[in-house]
Amino acid sequence: MPDFSPGLEGVVAAETEVSEVDGANGRLIYRGGYLIEDLAPTATFEEVAHLLWHGELPNQAELDALKKQMAAARTLTEPAQGALDAADVSVNPMDVLRTVVSAQGASKGLPKPDLDYAIALTAVFPTIVAATWRRSQGKEILKPRADLGHAANLLWMMDGKEPSADRARWVERYLVLLADHGLNASTFTARVIASTGSDLTSCVVGAIGALKGPAHGGATYAARTMLDKIGTADNAEKWLHEAHARGERFAGFGHRVYRTYDPRARILRDLAKAEAPELHKTAARTEEVALQILHEAHPERPNATNVDFWASVVLTGADIPKELFTSLFATSRVSGWTAHVLEALKDLRIIRPASVWIGPEPGKKPLPIAQR
Amino acid sequence: MPDFSPGLEGVVAAETEVSEVDGANGRLIYRGGYLIEDLAPTATFEEVAHLLWHGELPNQAELDALKKQMAAARTLTEPAQGALDAADVSVNPMDVLRTVVSAQGASKGLPKPDLDYAIALTAVFPTIVAATWRRSQGKEILKPRADLGHAANLLWMMDGKEPSADRARWVERYLVLLADHGLNASTFTARVIASTGSDLTSCVVGAIGALKGPAHGGATYAARTMLDKIGTADNAEKWLHEAHARGERFAGFGHRVYRTYDPRARILRDLAKAEAPELHKTAARTEEVALQILHEAHPERPNATNVDFWASVVLTGADIPKELFTSLFATSRVSGWTAHVLEALKDLRIIRPASVWIGPEPGKKPLPIAQR
Repeated sequence: MPDFSPGLEGVVAAETEVSEVDGANGRLIYRGGYLIEDLAPTATFEEVAHLLWHGELPNQAELDALKKQMAAARTLTEPAQGALDAADVSVNPMDVLRTVVSAQGASKGLPKPDLDYAIALTAVFPTIVAATWRRSQGKEILKPRADLGHAANLLWMMDGKEPSADRARWVERYLVLLADHGLNASTFTARVIASTGSDLTSCVVGAIGALKGPAHGGATYAARTMLDKIGTADNAEKWLHEAHARGERFAGFGHRVYRTYDPRARILRDLAKAEAPELHKTAARTEEVALQILHEAHPERPNATNVDFWASVVLTGADIPKELFTSLFATSRVSGWTAHVLEALKDLRIIRPASVWIGPEPGKKPLPIAQR
Repeated sequence: MPDFSPGLEGVVAAETEVSEVDGANGRLIYRGGYLIEDLAPTATFEEVAHLLWHGELPNQAELDALKKQMAAARTLTEPAQGALDAADVSVNPMDVLRTVVSAQGASKGLPKPDLDYAIALTAVFPTIVAATWRRSQGKEILKPRADLGHAANLLWMMDGKEPSADRARWVERYLVLLADHGLNASTFTARVIASTGSDLTSCVVGAIGALKGPAHGGATYAARTMLDKIGTADNAEKWLHEAHARGERFAGFGHRVYRTYDPRARILRDLAKAEAPELHKTAARTEEVALQILHEAHPERPNATNVDFWASVVLTGADIPKELFTSLFATSRVSGWTAHVLEALKDLRIIRPASVWIGPEPGKKPLPIAQR
């Protein structure tokens, strides 16, 4: 029996060509061998999703076909619409997403995951996220617009007006950057579920649940909450030292794999500078002080800023309500989840690790009541 | 980087005192050090759930309190009832369970998993399973009965009449035997989701999705389907040899951990003899021939019968429709899932394994369309 590695740190659970987090060198490589820096400046979410699913960027005809297929899949089924209509407007939007995606994907028997369904599930996320938002605001749900791309349609459905080119671009960048990231916990969840021969909806619904946690997708919200508390650049030093003295963890710092600066954080930081200059100032000062404190407290650890920290600034600058941050993350990552499941299908073997028993050996015990 | 172990076979992913699958010796130990044989004859599901949650069997007062708490939690919330009412009556009952549990557990913020919610979620499964069945039969949904135990109430809600003592007992045995089983794929899914700091509903919803797969909880249905095809004891030899020649896998044989006969399969086999004598004959002959064929084909493998094979006979004998087999499994296992999540909370560390990159190194590639 090998040694116990808590959190499976360093344990190889899959071979993958969907993406590679090269933590030692601070590189994120998407399928086909693309550095994230090559894609971030101009790629659309649809192009990147195509890349993750197929292994190459689409040509114009392929992209047009994908956009058409996705636009046609933006409508909820009746059972999904019913589940949405019945949801309490004040619950966590991730709970609504989890429920409505589950209802949307309900089917007879046990359909094998396939690309068409990966596309359909990915396409419908903005519909659910935007409708959840509008319901929480007491507003009518809007119909999707087939003439808009994935990011612009999401913003349209949230606001009922076309987003500015800048705003659509910022959200697009965010969606491209978060689309995949190796065997993160939600993707791993999807692969574990897939390994039993289950369907794609089950994989995605499980992944939504994993993403929700504050140690994973919920961290963007936590970073924003911290920035809200800090308020201004001038207050960062005082606030962070006091928080550190109270033993609080700084949201948006540290990562299991990166040993150097997360390349996505760098891209988002640069983006935020133009997009949200005031918040960028507060965040930059927060980052500076936080890293100082962390390096002093734990010089042995690579305490780099993670993607969640700067994502919270970029999403704020793009006027995304913070209640939706984790849902936006899911809207991006579902492309990666589904790509991983399709890859895992090629060599399906149930993921069933071992455990170490720390309970007592069998012996004389009180019996069930009927035998006492 | 350690060697790649496909399916995480032999990789220790947790220390646990909830249950131990001692595969080498064919023992299943429940929390507190109970051999499954000690519990199976007389323990009720509620007693075993209490054991998994607390580490000891309840006394009469504790059992009464638990039964009262569970009976009070059998009603669906409005959002869950709405999701159920909107579900298509012909879809996989596991999809309805996944959706309605998700809706039932929707909440504000991110509640920390706790025992009360573990009890509430476990208590509501029979309500959903029975309602799904009655809807599929075009029948009115029935209200739960607080005066009946977990197993008997499930049967009451399915049929609208009190089950015979025998039938309630058979279902009770089944629920006791399946309640936990180490780090099986669905329990592991729940623990991965919990590791991000997510809520209990997300863990359970993910686990439902994993259980659905034919390599996991779906195997009971597959075993029954095989027995249906075989039909009679006389036909077993011919059918199995032909199926083997076609390269088909026999449902209900083989297990990742057991190297000898699954103790649950032994108990269920004995139970089936009195409960369903005709089907027991067919199954016993099927088992005999299947093991013969498997041992000849793979003398190096421990090709023992697994729990799903005999569970399919016992559930059939208890008049459980085969469409509900996996849902019954979930109705039992949710007690173990929740016990594992509560245990995992004590030392939360995100489960985030590594992967091996098998894609190309970054280099010159076609650019996104905007840059071409």
